Amino acid sequence: MSDFALHPRLDADTLHVTDLPLCQVRLMNDARYSWLVLIPRRADIREVYELSADDQAQLWKEATILGKAMMAAKAGDKLNLATLGNMVPQLHLHVIVRHETDEAWPGPVWGQGRAVVYDTAQETAMRACITRCLETSGLN
Amino acid sequence: MSDFALHPRLDADTLHVTDLPLCQVRLMNDARYSWLVLIPRRADIREVYELSADDQAQLWKEATILGKAMMAAKAGDKLNLATLGNMVPQLHLHVIVRHETDEAWPGPVWGQGRAVVYDTAQETAMRACITRCLETSGLN
Repeated sequence: MSDFALHPRLDADTLHVTDLPLCQVRLMNDARYSWLVLIPRRADIREVYELSADDQAQLWKEATILGKAMMAAKAGDKLNLATLGNMVPQLHLHVIVRHETDEAWPGPVWGQGRAVVYDTAQETAMRACITRCLETSGLN
Repeated sequence: MSDFALHPRLDADTLHVTDLPLCQVRLMNDARYSWLVLIPRRADIREVYELSADDQAQLWKEATILGKAMMAAKAGDKLNLATLGNMVPQLHLHVIVRHETDEAWPGPVWGQGRAVVYDTAQETAMRACITRCLETSGLN
């Protein structure tokens, strides 16, 4: 994994949270949503099927378990899981807890309005929430 | 799986193609994209994590293998895999071959413009393409 390098656009739009066995977990810097991005720490991967079978299984495991824990923690109405990558080719998986009251509901979140960056208190609270989710889910 | 029933909105928007071990494979009736929808044939499932671990693994397997084959068949630029479900709660996974020349690129496909329904010749060709992809991938 030594060749793994984060795409500059992901680096600019998200905040580092932690590293799981496969993925770097990052928080989309947009307080309107509970929106995580998981990036497999593998070099030069664009598509899920370019990962090994074991890595694919680990990617879905990390995303699904973390998503389930976040849904509970945030009392979400629907979990959105998506790998698009039309703008940023580096493989990354969106894990988004949606609420029927959120700004983009029921549409997808991408390209809707402007991001509202976290203030310090919000970011601290969100990091604590994610940490609890990771601990209770046994992912790290 | 006897209780599986397709949501009316999915039934209206998509065309039945085939049934895989877990999922019903349906074609979004929109000739602008090579867009499949996989619906696990399980009753009352909204979230990926409500499926058993085996079913989750099978869902990702069917989506990834079929997506890879469709990417090759359609010379796609990027594969989009997504489960959103904000409008249709029944769990369904979008498998979309994207091209840099398609109408919504680089944005997501949902909610962009109006669907262009397949004419008979287009539908026949697309069904043949999907059948070949399923055969070569060993999924059915």
